[in-house]
Amino acid sequence: MLTITNPLRKRAAEFLRELQDEITSALTILDGKATFREDRWERPGGGGGRARVIENGALFEKAGVNFSEVFGNSPQYLTSKDPTATTFYATGVSLVLHAHSPMIPTVHANFRYFELSNGKSWFGGGMDLTPSYLVDSDAQHFHHTIKATCDAHDTSYYPRFKKWCDEYFYIKHRQETRGIGGVFYDNLGTELSHPEPIFAFHKDIARSFLPAYVPIAEKHRDEGFTEAQRHWQLLRRGRYVEFNLVYDKGTVFGLETGGRTESILMSLPTLARWDYDYHPAPMSPEATLIEVLQHPRPWA
Amino acid sequence: MLTITNPLRKRAAEFLRELQDEITSALTILDGKATFREDRWERPGGGGGRARVIENGALFEKAGVNFSEVFGNSPQYLTSKDPTATTFYATGVSLVLHAHSPMIPTVHANFRYFELSNGKSWFGGGMDLTPSYLVDSDAQHFHHTIKATCDAHDTSYYPRFKKWCDEYFYIKHRQETRGIGGVFYDNLGTELSHPEPIFAFHKDIARSFLPAYVPIAEKHRDEGFTEAQRHWQLLRRGRYVEFNLVYDKGTVFGLETGGRTESILMSLPTLARWDYDYHPAPMSPEATLIEVLQHPRPWA
Repeated sequence: MLTITNPLRKRAAEFLRELQDEITSALTILDGKATFREDRWERPGGGGGRARVIENGALFEKAGVNFSEVFGNSPQYLTSKDPTATTFYATGVSLVLHAHSPMIPTVHANFRYFELSNGKSWFGGGMDLTPSYLVDSDAQHFHHTIKATCDAHDTSYYPRFKKWCDEYFYIKHRQETRGIGGVFYDNLGTELSHPEPIFAFHKDIARSFLPAYVPIAEKHRDEGFTEAQRHWQLLRRGRYVEFNLVYDKGTVFGLETGGRTESILMSLPTLARWDYDYHPAPMSPEATLIEVLQHPRPWA
Repeated sequence: MLTITNPLRKRAAEFLRELQDEITSALTILDGKATFREDRWERPGGGGGRARVIENGALFEKAGVNFSEVFGNSPQYLTSKDPTATTFYATGVSLVLHAHSPMIPTVHANFRYFELSNGKSWFGGGMDLTPSYLVDSDAQHFHHTIKATCDAHDTSYYPRFKKWCDEYFYIKHRQETRGIGGVFYDNLGTELSHPEPIFAFHKDIARSFLPAYVPIAEKHRDEGFTEAQRHWQLLRRGRYVEFNLVYDKGTVFGLETGGRTESILMSLPTLARWDYDYHPAPMSPEATLIEVLQHPRPWA
């Protein structure tokens, strides 16, 4: 049975609130100009959240870091799969950072914890990098940082979760991945008779987000870029929009179940572009990116 | 049984080819600078199409007018609903026109004919207008033109198909319609024992597209506009992208069943924008548009 005093639930939500604070503090320093606007919202059926967004900062064109904790009667899609899951509890932090510069990759991370009234509970999460221009050392840094954290808990985690990430963030109608991946995990510890090792992993991987991403943004922040590179970035953001609106389960599920639309769609970039049947020149840096999206590589 | 000599099928496809020619000829004159690029494509399972696109014209930022005629083994979504529908035939013209100017509405139209191997065949179609700024006389002209054509065939058509359009082009998570509507019809004449009156209606409504749209574009083409109005247009195009990728059956079905991605997604605008939690000033022209999208009006 779910009770409001469930200690794991309380600890999971408390950790995520702190994570949101840590990440938004660090990103405010990284941006150097903007501060996060916060909107607290309540869900009619139970719970609510804290949406935090930067728009038109020095480094970030749009950065959203959201915390939510929602509970109540299960939506129909859950009860149709399992009639015993009459109520649910879910808490998560979800972030998407779009920089002005096409030289700084877009990044996404999400860390969540679920409970159902039938006794099932689990952790899910991950992070993935979406560059407009492939820089091998960036991809290696991102993956090495995540792998080191995974390996400290279970050496099977990184290979499994890296593959899961490449499979999850796949844009089927483009036959390419959204970006150069990272890790993705879900349903981790469905029974959770021994949740502590999994919760410890979950916390560590979430805390590895800043060291995985921030050095990459710092490294490229002062590079110049051309109009042609910005044009390419906007086309790539079009693909980001396609993935999120067509395939992303969190987005589609959130919109279907009456989540807060502005929080869910803060993942969409300020500007995105679609040119008909656009193909970059062979052997160009743009074509190099496409090649790696069509053929995911090992990075760590 | 489907046979390649089915006269209605041949006549439906022939009409749609001519319709594409008529519309692209008229739009080339309207644009005044650009000409349509044509891509002929083949579908591996049977059939193909003619994609015609203008980008960066004088009036059009992006205009796509596609013809397709596809057939073969039914996709799984069809056979799972009806095991007797083992093969299918579909032909259609689909168009979306995005002008540079925010004073010229975006417009969409689609006219299609289907046959299944179980003997069912039907017509579907419609057209709808999506302004960034509401001009009552434009909405009235668009709807009056369509209604006059409908009324000449069956006075029940316009009220039914206008309502169907408002319901179909509804963005649930925004609680607003995509635009100010028009008409939408589907499964018209599922048995088709007497197809001629329905085919005649289908042809007439398709031919009313140019008189319904072109005068509106002509009227606004020389109006100036501000950066703020362009900004609002890009935000509205964001909603257009949301509808097409989340809700539009043609888009989602096309992507799922391996249609030609570039033809399907020619409906997406060159540029679209998402600002977090943006609300226009009360009583502004922008707020007036939102009001009518939340409360569809009778226009004819």
